[in-house]
Amino acid sequence: MKDKFYQYIQNLQDQITSKLESIDGHAKFQEDLWKRPEGGGGRTRVIENGNVFEKGGVNISGVHGKLPKSMQTYFKVGDVDFFACGLSLVLHPKNPMVPTVHANWRYFEMYDDAGEIIDSWFGGGQDLTPYYLFDEDAIHFHQTCKTACDKHDPEFYPNYKKRCDEYFYNAHRNEGRGIGGLFFDYCKATQSKSMENWYNFVTEVGDSFLEAYVPIVERRKDLPYTTAQRNWQEIRRGRYVEFNLVHDKGTLFGLKTNGRIESILMSLPPHVQWVYDHHPEQGSDEEKLIQTLQEPKKWI
Amino acid sequence: MKDKFYQYIQNLQDQITSKLESIDGHAKFQEDLWKRPEGGGGRTRVIENGNVFEKGGVNISGVHGKLPKSMQTYFKVGDVDFFACGLSLVLHPKNPMVPTVHANWRYFEMYDDAGEIIDSWFGGGQDLTPYYLFDEDAIHFHQTCKTACDKHDPEFYPNYKKRCDEYFYNAHRNEGRGIGGLFFDYCKATQSKSMENWYNFVTEVGDSFLEAYVPIVERRKDLPYTTAQRNWQEIRRGRYVEFNLVHDKGTLFGLKTNGRIESILMSLPPHVQWVYDHHPEQGSDEEKLIQTLQEPKKWI
Repeated sequence: MKDKFYQYIQNLQDQITSKLESIDGHAKFQEDLWKRPEGGGGRTRVIENGNVFEKGGVNISGVHGKLPKSMQTYFKVGDVDFFACGLSLVLHPKNPMVPTVHANWRYFEMYDDAGEIIDSWFGGGQDLTPYYLFDEDAIHFHQTCKTACDKHDPEFYPNYKKRCDEYFYNAHRNEGRGIGGLFFDYCKATQSKSMENWYNFVTEVGDSFLEAYVPIVERRKDLPYTTAQRNWQEIRRGRYVEFNLVHDKGTLFGLKTNGRIESILMSLPPHVQWVYDHHPEQGSDEEKLIQTLQEPKKWI
Repeated sequence: MKDKFYQYIQNLQDQITSKLESIDGHAKFQEDLWKRPEGGGGRTRVIENGNVFEKGGVNISGVHGKLPKSMQTYFKVGDVDFFACGLSLVLHPKNPMVPTVHANWRYFEMYDDAGEIIDSWFGGGQDLTPYYLFDEDAIHFHQTCKTACDKHDPEFYPNYKKRCDEYFYNAHRNEGRGIGGLFFDYCKATQSKSMENWYNFVTEVGDSFLEAYVPIVERRKDLPYTTAQRNWQEIRRGRYVEFNLVHDKGTLFGLKTNGRIESILMSLPPHVQWVYDHHPEQGSDEEKLIQTLQEPKKWI
């Protein structure tokens, strides 16, 4: 399974970066191959200063070895070996009418002394962070997520949509990071679902990513915008930074376990502003966005 | 003691904001009075878009009531009453030749059921974060800190300088946030130091702040700078954000205990950049700064 899934994310990274480059029409992904001293490594691909994408990363990694102490505590296991791999992406478009998107699909294994798998699971999801809200885009993104989920289990979309709203929440601001999507974790073999079933589900979601995001980019990338709207985007990107550095378990885990810093922090936006006590005008599009983020919405 | 110290920080806030306004010559501090529902409140003063100060806050607060659950756990005490007050300031100058400065002086009391003080302490410090390193400025800042310390105890400066280097450290980047200064905490009554002695020491440091920082601002605020130097400042400000949101206990504590968010996050810089895998040119001033931040330096 680990080889099959790693092969899958390698191919998916190629598909996604190639499609995004063709949309951007100007910037190319810069590739960094890196090795983890304790075992494994990754292929980081970053795009910067494009026509469409101001900054973004589409990274894969596959790491293995002794499970770090901090993870032993976290997973409540002893001194075991592990393997983990995944694809993580974040795209920060230049035009404030185009939403930021984040996605991640990952697979984890732990082994006993004989090298037998003692536990394994999939996790991941994808979520959208608009600066200006187009209901049509939100509905398209969620509908694509739901279609992918429904092929596997009718309960997946409502459950994973709810978990996404709960996870990507800036508690200190009382607002969601964005308008959500899917979030799932610890997808393990059960009576009714084999690891093969989970693989089919997770790759179905991975395959749906470009379908979920690209039509939104195409619709919005050439819309005109003002300096005030660009400032609003940069202020909202500040909230993105706050979530990633204060609340996001993946980021904090990476920072505290000696991960590759530049691959982890590629998620941070290129230009960001913090303005003291900023409040959008009453009745403005900016205020409408905040109101929507304060209460998870049923898009379907 | 609590009334005396609160009076002191009120006066100090007035002195500092009035001096900074006169240096800026353009922007004025905007004052927000706020109340904490559970008891107490604060006086937040923020300056933005000045000639000299692009963004800064000089805030005081005095809060009291039942010690929040999370703080009971942190301090390993039961369900007690508390009082806490302090002055916190962060200044982000526009010109990259002028360093960012942070300072904080605070006092804490806890009470038994009869309202008697069961524990009390002072804490605080001040530290400098340059974007371009002028040894003269670093030496002046540290010398002012040392002079204030030496009037009270010859061990204070070396001890509190070391603790400052240790505390303001971006472990995930293997570099200091800045070039340090002083950091002290849990300054309690002992055989040789009364709370009155600590009050005299902490207020000596507070009184030294303008002397430590203002001459540096005066020397550097009108130096010319390029767009490339401004970009470097914004990239380094990203490291400031990383420290405050990932490592700073005060910020995280505030965010997780329902503090006044805008007063806490006034510390974040106005315009910030994150560039993937940025490295300054070999032998440049920018590289010299990073090298200095990688190993705490004896400035005196």
